[in-house]
Amino acid sequence: MTDKNIKIALVQMSMTESVNENLAKACAKTREAAKNGAQIVCLPELFASQYFCQQQHPDIFDLAESIPGPTTTAMATVAKEMNIVILVSVFEKRTPGLHHNTLVVIEADGTIAGLYRKMHIPDDPLFFEKYYFAPGDTGFKTFETSKGHIAALVCWDQWYPEAARIAALKGAKIIFYPTAIGWHPDEKEEYGERQVSAWMTIQRSHAIANGVFVAAVNRCGFEKIVGKGLEFWGHSFVSDPFGRVMTQAEQDETILYHDCDLALLEDTRRNWPFLRDRRIDAYDPILNRYIDKEE
Amino acid sequence: MTDKNIKIALVQMSMTESVNENLAKACAKTREAAKNGAQIVCLPELFASQYFCQQQHPDIFDLAESIPGPTTTAMATVAKEMNIVILVSVFEKRTPGLHHNTLVVIEADGTIAGLYRKMHIPDDPLFFEKYYFAPGDTGFKTFETSKGHIAALVCWDQWYPEAARIAALKGAKIIFYPTAIGWHPDEKEEYGERQVSAWMTIQRSHAIANGVFVAAVNRCGFEKIVGKGLEFWGHSFVSDPFGRVMTQAEQDETILYHDCDLALLEDTRRNWPFLRDRRIDAYDPILNRYIDKEE
Repeated sequence: MTDKNIKIALVQMSMTESVNENLAKACAKTREAAKNGAQIVCLPELFASQYFCQQQHPDIFDLAESIPGPTTTAMATVAKEMNIVILVSVFEKRTPGLHHNTLVVIEADGTIAGLYRKMHIPDDPLFFEKYYFAPGDTGFKTFETSKGHIAALVCWDQWYPEAARIAALKGAKIIFYPTAIGWHPDEKEEYGERQVSAWMTIQRSHAIANGVFVAAVNRCGFEKIVGKGLEFWGHSFVSDPFGRVMTQAEQDETILYHDCDLALLEDTRRNWPFLRDRRIDAYDPILNRYIDKEE
Repeated sequence: MTDKNIKIALVQMSMTESVNENLAKACAKTREAAKNGAQIVCLPELFASQYFCQQQHPDIFDLAESIPGPTTTAMATVAKEMNIVILVSVFEKRTPGLHHNTLVVIEADGTIAGLYRKMHIPDDPLFFEKYYFAPGDTGFKTFETSKGHIAALVCWDQWYPEAARIAALKGAKIIFYPTAIGWHPDEKEEYGERQVSAWMTIQRSHAIANGVFVAAVNRCGFEKIVGKGLEFWGHSFVSDPFGRVMTQAEQDETILYHDCDLALLEDTRRNWPFLRDRRIDAYDPILNRYIDKEE
């Protein structure tokens, strides 16, 4: 495992209706990132297709695939060819009638290091994920890859401090969040800026609370599947363990790079040692849905 | 309990070596806040004295007091006179050799509604709190006061998402963080800005993750007890449930006011319903100090 720096790349991309086109673009951009020195490359959530959860229709389950399947096999070829770790988000068909939003970690030799099934599933207008994805049963996972010890979480997970904390307690140095978040056209003008701000703030806070790097990879582009469509806001970024945004995309397609300096992680945790003072004897109320009445 | 708005006031103040002066100033500013319509007033951490934890000396325990004691009695008089709830941070002497950093919630009739003993105790150069304060044994508490359902946490607690989450699960609508945080003169130039940014980000994230208001009340002023002293950075602020900073102080003494609109809290949680999707079946790893090896 690398001792000092881990160079990561985040592929911010837009998707068309063609799965083949999307997959070809993802492969090409991943190769480009590897040529530029990236050791770990993360693609956006469900990059093989447009964000189909904008509507509920049973035919859409045809997009789901097994693991291994076409998407992971294509990316495994790139991983082995370029000697890099790749985080691959897949609409997983586990068995008929049981599907997941799954993140597959592919090792530099092309093997599957493991998978994480999205634990927190949203369900809001134009984001009908509970229809498509069963809640993950993997728990929160980290992966000690050949390029670094990482955690792989997905989109809605980013709003939950519990997930990031568990990832850090399991030793992750970098938390990746492949994402598909965008503006509803009716909301963008009034709420757009504050939505992006909240989205960045909560993820930067995970970096701060846990002394880890956080890498968020959003899709971009406008997708009109139903109604007025969704404008995916891009703005992928990397936060250092102090919550500083080290690099950030605009709304266009781009590849973001960052050298994650593990000496900085050590230094940050040494100066503000939050992990030292946790009150693990007093956190069990967190395991409740709600606590209806203070005694 | 108020249904719609709760008007709060945060007294950002500096302290001298005189406990009597500090207490008189706190009473005067609290009265002023009440005259301006505040229903709940929060004072900074340990406002009766300068921040004595800059050094370790056994004589300093003379500053500690019982509860009820001089500080809470003085503030209870103001609470009853003005019909307001006051959050009063006290260096508590529980018994010889056992002291706490304690937050007392005083009801509008002058009675003590309850107390919270700071759970997370820091210990860093010039912040030698583990010498003075035993870790709290109250757990994380909320208080259903006559002016609103609030949680009272203290300073270092603000770095711990677990504390804020438990407060929200217990029904708190506003989380108060009386604080004493400042710049070490050697660090201010290089790290000062990013320290304030991290401090704000982590607290705004608690507002976002939990859909609550967060009110942070820092002291201000320069205190030179030993060495080069500490410059308390002020910057008290109120965040709405979406993480937006609604009002913020500079470094000077001031009283910050905010009308906390509980309809906004309802609206925020309805649009991004994070509490709905928590995976309470999968959070128990949080109760570990660390998880040494992924199986």
